[in-house]
Amino acid sequence: MDTPGVKPDGAREGRRLHDFAARLYPICRSITGDGVRQTLALIKARIPLVVREVPTGTRAFDWEIPDEWNVEDAAVIDADGRRVVDFQRHNLHLVSYSEPIAKTLSLRELSSRLHVLPEHPDWIPYRTSYYQRDWGFCMSARARAALREGKYRVEIKTSLAPGALTYGELAIPGRTREEVLLFTHVCHPSLANDNTSGMAVATALAEWIAKEPRRFTYRFVFAPGTIGSLTWLKLNETRLSRVRHGLVLGLLGDPAPLCYKRSRRETAEIDAVAAHVLEPAGRVIPFSPYGYDERQLCSPGFDLPVGRLTRAVNGGYPEYHSSADDLTLITPGALQGSLEACENIVQTLEGNGHYVNLNPKGEPRLGKRGLYGTLGGGDPAEREHARLWVLNQSDGAHSLLDISRRSGLAFPAIRAAAHELEQARLLRPARARAPTASVNRRTARAKRAGKIRRKS
Amino acid sequence: MDTPGVKPDGAREGRRLHDFAARLYPICRSITGDGVRQTLALIKARIPLVVREVPTGTRAFDWEIPDEWNVEDAAVIDADGRRVVDFQRHNLHLVSYSEPIAKTLSLRELSSRLHVLPEHPDWIPYRTSYYQRDWGFCMSARARAALREGKYRVEIKTSLAPGALTYGELAIPGRTREEVLLFTHVCHPSLANDNTSGMAVATALAEWIAKEPRRFTYRFVFAPGTIGSLTWLKLNETRLSRVRHGLVLGLLGDPAPLCYKRSRRETAEIDAVAAHVLEPAGRVIPFSPYGYDERQLCSPGFDLPVGRLTRAVNGGYPEYHSSADDLTLITPGALQGSLEACENIVQTLEGNGHYVNLNPKGEPRLGKRGLYGTLGGGDPAEREHARLWVLNQSDGAHSLLDISRRSGLAFPAIRAAAHELEQARLLRPARARAPTASVNRRTARAKRAGKIRRKS
Amino acid sequence: MDTPGVKPDGAREGRRLHDFAARLYPICRSITGDGVRQTLALIKARIPLVVREVPTGTRAFDWEIPDEWNVEDAAVIDADGRRVVDFQRHNLHLVSYSEPIAKTLSLRELSSRLHVLPEHPDWIPYRTSYYQRDWGFCMSARARAALREGKYRVEIKTSLAPGALTYGELAIPGRTREEVLLFTHVCHPSLANDNTSGMAVATALAEWIAKEPRRFTYRFVFAPGTIGSLTWLKLNETRLSRVRHGLVLGLLGDPAPLCYKRSRRETAEIDAVAAHVLEPAGRVIPFSPYGYDERQLCSPGFDLPVGRLTRAVNGGYPEYHSSADDLTLITPGALQGSLEACENIVQTLEGNGHYVNLNPKGEPRLGKRGLYGTLGGGDPAEREHARLWVLNQSDGAHSLLDISRRSGLAFPAIRAAAHELEQARLLRPARARAPTASVNRRTARAKRAGKIRRKS
Repeated sequence: MDTPGVKPDGAREGRRLHDFAARLYPICRSITGDGVRQTLALIKARIPLVVREVPTGTRAFDWEIPDEWNVEDAAVIDADGRRVVDFQRHNLHLVSYSEPIAKTLSLRELSSRLHVLPEHPDWIPYRTSYYQRDWGFCMSARARAALREGKYRVEIKTSLAPGALTYGELAIPGRTREEVLLFTHVCHPSLANDNTSGMAVATALAEWIAKEPRRFTYRFVFAPGTIGSLTWLKLNETRLSRVRHGLVLGLLGDPAPLCYKRSRRETAEIDAVAAHVLEPAGRVIPFSPYGYDERQLCSPGFDLPVGRLTRAVNGGYPEYHSSADDLTLITPGALQGSLEACENIVQTLEGNGHYVNLNPKGEPRLGKRGLYGTLGGGDPAEREHARLWVLNQSDGAHSLLDISRRSGLAFPAIRAAAHELEQARLLRPARARAPTASVNRRTARAKRAGKIRRKS
Repeated sequence: MDTPGVKPDGAREGRRLHDFAARLYPICRSITGDGVRQTLALIKARIPLVVREVPTGTRAFDWEIPDEWNVEDAAVIDADGRRVVDFQRHNLHLVSYSEPIAKTLSLRELSSRLHVLPEHPDWIPYRTSYYQRDWGFCMSARARAALREGKYRVEIKTSLAPGALTYGELAIPGRTREEVLLFTHVCHPSLANDNTSGMAVATALAEWIAKEPRRFTYRFVFAPGTIGSLTWLKLNETRLSRVRHGLVLGLLGDPAPLCYKRSRRETAEIDAVAAHVLEPAGRVIPFSPYGYDERQLCSPGFDLPVGRLTRAVNGGYPEYHSSADDLTLITPGALQGSLEACENIVQTLEGNGHYVNLNPKGEPRLGKRGLYGTLGGGDPAEREHARLWVLNQSDGAHSLLDISRRSGLAFPAIRAAAHELEQARLLRPARARAPTASVNRRTARAKRAGKIRRKS
Repeated sequence: MDTPGVKPDGAREGRRLHDFAARLYPICRSITGDGVRQTLALIKARIPLVVREVPTGTRAFDWEIPDEWNVEDAAVIDADGRRVVDFQRHNLHLVSYSEPIAKTLSLRELSSRLHVLPEHPDWIPYRTSYYQRDWGFCMSARARAALREGKYRVEIKTSLAPGALTYGELAIPGRTREEVLLFTHVCHPSLANDNTSGMAVATALAEWIAKEPRRFTYRFVFAPGTIGSLTWLKLNETRLSRVRHGLVLGLLGDPAPLCYKRSRRETAEIDAVAAHVLEPAGRVIPFSPYGYDERQLCSPGFDLPVGRLTRAVNGGYPEYHSSADDLTLITPGALQGSLEACENIVQTLEGNGHYVNLNPKGEPRLGKRGLYGTLGGGDPAEREHARLWVLNQSDGAHSLLDISRRSGLAFPAIRAAAHELEQARLLRPARARAPTASVNRRTARAKRAGKIRRKS
């Protein structure tokens, strides 16, 4: 369970993930608009997503949801009527949030509006201009070089108008109201790794989590980057103290090894758990305030215990933010490995309790409970060692993962020992550690109001 | 003083230790019974041990003292009347706590009752069945192989009956009531290293400590493993907060280098002191909840600052728990080196005070007190550096060992500097650090009752 | 700004430093007397030093200012009337604080009064006897060897009489009353590195600091070693809580790399700042209670956050405390490099604020403030990364130097980002961290007395 690898049915699951990514790939997404709605509809066909529409103009801290953007068509047309840059052929050709325009310019006038990647002459770059009204096209450097002097007709048929920001949310209730937040961005157009891979893995993870009862409540958010996470944070600000762990998911289909980026706290439980699950092949990198929505979730005013799981990192592969980030870059095997790592992280979080030894003075008699060999003199088995470790360290301060690390015994062995000892009434889960102040205050108010009964 | 080594009279002392171990060796000890009484009587002939008898059936936390076990005779007798397994020849032949039996069985029926060590065909293993009524024999694999098919008469003449658990205790009072606990197990039959070596070294250490006044009260406990330490803990539960340092002693005669196993706290003063004394030849290992009575003393409900000193570790040498752990495995030199390490630990604990600089603002004038050269301009001697270090760091928070480590100066030099500065009234011992809560509560009660006068 | 090096005008500044050291060099300084007064007068000609005279006999903690010592002449005269040891030729020839004497002795009688350095036969050692009335001469071993048997006339024309200890002090007020203490000793006679180099660098540093307004108040103290710092501490005891950072300056002209000795606290801000400025060429050594006036400033009763900047360390070069520590040992380049390191430390301390993000929930919209590129999709520039880092980490707990270390971005880039963000009203300086208890008490009294208004 601890070592990510390809399960027997891994090949089939990997193919299913890739198929779903392929269905998401052609859609022209942006931070608002119908592309996001189509995307969420496809996901909703698999998991019971709640789709939310937040009106444009809504404030989210220092930000405001911009007008909704939709594209009918866009092209640069030469004097011969040929669509030399054509949105219909690839949605990356149009700078995202380009305003509508219809005019004729000389190549010289048009030039500063044409974005290329000189170092990769066949790739179309991905560019956006969300918050500054502007327009432009992206094209391969080779196609750009082939343009001859002359007049070009620019036709951008887009709308920028009041509407909504759309995002999807799914909460899978657990035994407790403590939440694990799983966040993935849905605002990139035809870029396969960034981020149809993240959407496909997150969707499949939700399906898997829903299969059986869990300790934590799992909350999935599929939202546009930055403005989407800010909007979600704004709407959920009073409930954030429930977030005990979290992951931003993205870039999960490329061939790079898995990479966990720590939370701003650097020592949150998710940081230890993810590092543990990724051993030995994955890598762990420190927090930095650039990347995906961890930028918002880990801003100092929230400082949520949320890390990020990717394979390559943003900007860390040549195809990043270009048309070369297509369906050939992502593989069923990589997607499947990413899903398994997520599942392992979930299982480790679920199992990583803090316990209290109910018989803390000396060892309890394990032998009479069938938890220890009765013939003394030889060395006990590993499972007996695991029980002694769990009993010795279970003072409420050490998680099972801490005990696994200190003892050198595998996490599943420690987890099993805790389970057996709990069954034998020698161990009980530690009371949840104190939530943050705001939760305490609300809990206190609720208690005074008679709304909360004492937990048995 | 700091480097364990063979003193001039070491050879004689080593021989004396080995002789005592040899006297203890033949006795058939178990967790209760006359073997323990005979053992404690031999020790009491050397040090004024108080021997305590605790009735069987007494509860000790999750445990209960089992019936007392004594052996008259035990043998497996073949059809020709030959005692093919004979307790009279080696007390390891009988599984400890075997119940009485007298019956005739076929070899096939007997087979599962006969314990051997296949990998060491000439050695008899050591096995016990303290808490599950059972019986069995241990024998060499070679002797087992020589048994022919046929009927065998099994005669175990033991008694399992109400009686007592016996242990010995010696408190050597010091200037303070703060205690150093020295614990050694006395429940193993004819096993030389495990643990006649521990009993011999602990006895000699008590003799040595009693020779001069000490700062700490030293409490020696010679008790059976597990149930003995649990019984002692139960009877002394309200006094445990006096235990400031402690060592479990055992396995001290074999040729392995000294090995210190840290307390559960890992950073207790005894952990630093023992590591310091064992440098550079000894080794230090982390705490683990398996081994000897540190399992009980360091259970989370007590968490005493008690480490363990051995040479080889439990299970760490081939002869462990077999008849090959005999008097040839332990040597006078090893026993003597172990005793010296214990003495060094005691001396370091005694000397490792925390002090308060009585002239903390600037340096005091050492020159006028004869503690510093009066001709300036040259570099001061090491003893002058030691005095500056002790003065600078003596704010009550740093022990002399801390100062030795930080300064790189040898502990005896730092100790001598502290002594000179105390003589010169520039330093005083720091008030004892706050004991644990339970002590505070008891002290507070005693104060209210007028029982404790203010310490001058 | 961060990398010490020779500035364009460095050669001229270095020459100026060396010239000033050369003017200070010939003066016969001791812990009291006219040599100190002449020295302070030369410094006062450059910076507005306040010269203080503290009467001999004044107590300073365990010490008392000794009688003032002045020298008219001293010599050892042979039977032929030749001054074979002559104070007029080198002031090191006379043991400092030698009492007056005029008598004739045989070479044998004189012998123990003649101090030499056998390992350096041409060098005169430096010796003192401040607190024990005594007398003696220092000479080269070669000259000592040339003395023939016979009678020698000893004439020491010194005065030891009531007077004063003299020291100089300069406070350059800053925007806050928080102080940076810069301490250099002025009690050594003709020793160039120890410490005309320190006096020259400290004087030039004061000139440089006074050139523009500063955040901190800078307090320079030019005082004799030990008794001078103790006297200053005694007179300023109630104001010490203002000292937020400090440096002892000395030995700054020799060719060794710069060496920072940490404060007793080891983790004070000055320790981080100095280590940062000295990277990569300089070295950092741990605190020890021997050296210069950090011995007093860092005694446990004061424990000021004061480190020490030197090149070679006390006792760490062959010429130390001998006539070979002359003007050829110190170079304009080394002096200039030392001054620049001091300036860099000052600039880093000044700039190393703690800030609070005024928009801590999510990122603020940097783009609309011109602090972030508006075309998305490409990687932001380093200055944009610096802004994200400063915003993310500015919760009042991390200094800009901390942020520089964590981000791996250069301190000036982080400093510039903080400045821009403050200009954009996205950041404000954190309120000063709580001063020590004594300051709090005095502040509380003052507040009760209506003397302090609330800081806006």
